[in-house]
Amino acid sequence: MLVLGVDPGSVVTGYGLIEKKQNQMSCIHAGAISSSNKVPFFQRIHKIYQSMVDIMDRYRPQEMAIEDVFFSKNVKSALKIGHARGAVLIAAVQSGVEIFEYAPLEIKQSVVGYGRATKEQVRSMVRVILKLETKLNLDTSDALATAICHLNWTRFDKT
Amino acid sequence: MLVLGVDPGSVVTGYGLIEKKQNQMSCIHAGAISSSNKVPFFQRIHKIYQSMVDIMDRYRPQEMAIEDVFFSKNVKSALKIGHARGAVLIAAVQSGVEIFEYAPLEIKQSVVGYGRATKEQVRSMVRVILKLETKLNLDTSDALATAICHLNWTRFDKT
Repeated sequence: MLVLGVDPGSVVTGYGLIEKKQNQMSCIHAGAISSSNKVPFFQRIHKIYQSMVDIMDRYRPQEMAIEDVFFSKNVKSALKIGHARGAVLIAAVQSGVEIFEYAPLEIKQSVVGYGRATKEQVRSMVRVILKLETKLNLDTSDALATAICHLNWTRFDKT
Repeated sequence: MLVLGVDPGSVVTGYGLIEKKQNQMSCIHAGAISSSNKVPFFQRIHKIYQSMVDIMDRYRPQEMAIEDVFFSKNVKSALKIGHARGAVLIAAVQSGVEIFEYAPLEIKQSVVGYGRATKEQVRSMVRVILKLETKLNLDTSDALATAICHLNWTRFDKT
């Protein structure tokens, strides 16, 4: 079972692919999609869509886990994150990848065991769980955490 | 010159195609994309994207005019409208249609001559300008108003 976790944002969209085999999770590929803020907004949103389609075509994950956003700092940032999240969802439907949504609290609870954990605490636990030696930016570790949450919470045996 | 105007919304997305010939605008096609609220949100967003791609493929507008949203009732509605607007922008980039954005005030000013006009006043003026006898829902008339604004404001001769 290969799961794609995504943390959408109009500036940086993190993503990570996790495979679960014999109850052990391993990171197959992870990264972040970003654009200069000199690039027009609509082109940045299209880049997120196109990059996600490319990643799904290349790695063929069966399922995608994404944060279910209800809140945002303000209306302006909610509008922006909405565009980016829409791009990711459209790519998943387009590629036939099943979509699973988790509240931020669920993700933190599942990975750190504490719903109010900081992004840095989430990153530390993600590195431990996936035995990663490499550096991770916070958008990528949030994406990997979402995939871990999905693999932990699912009632089916994903191995 | 054929211009597509769009009024994006996660429940209803209005659209309208206007042609300008010899300084006279006429409505070529207009309508609204909607889904039952029983349909999962991500499928509704994908339907907006797919419908917009289909409309652009069929009518081949050179330019698209869309409202530049800065404000929203609240964070939750901003998130939703962001998803829908992202779907429309991705479809336009995908189809190679040039994107032009206008503030709500500019659109109302251009069509009604008054920046604080109601949606009903906008609809009345849209029907007069386009000599439409048929009924129009408010999402469709807002979309047509955005296209009219683009054709009025543009400095180039679009005839």
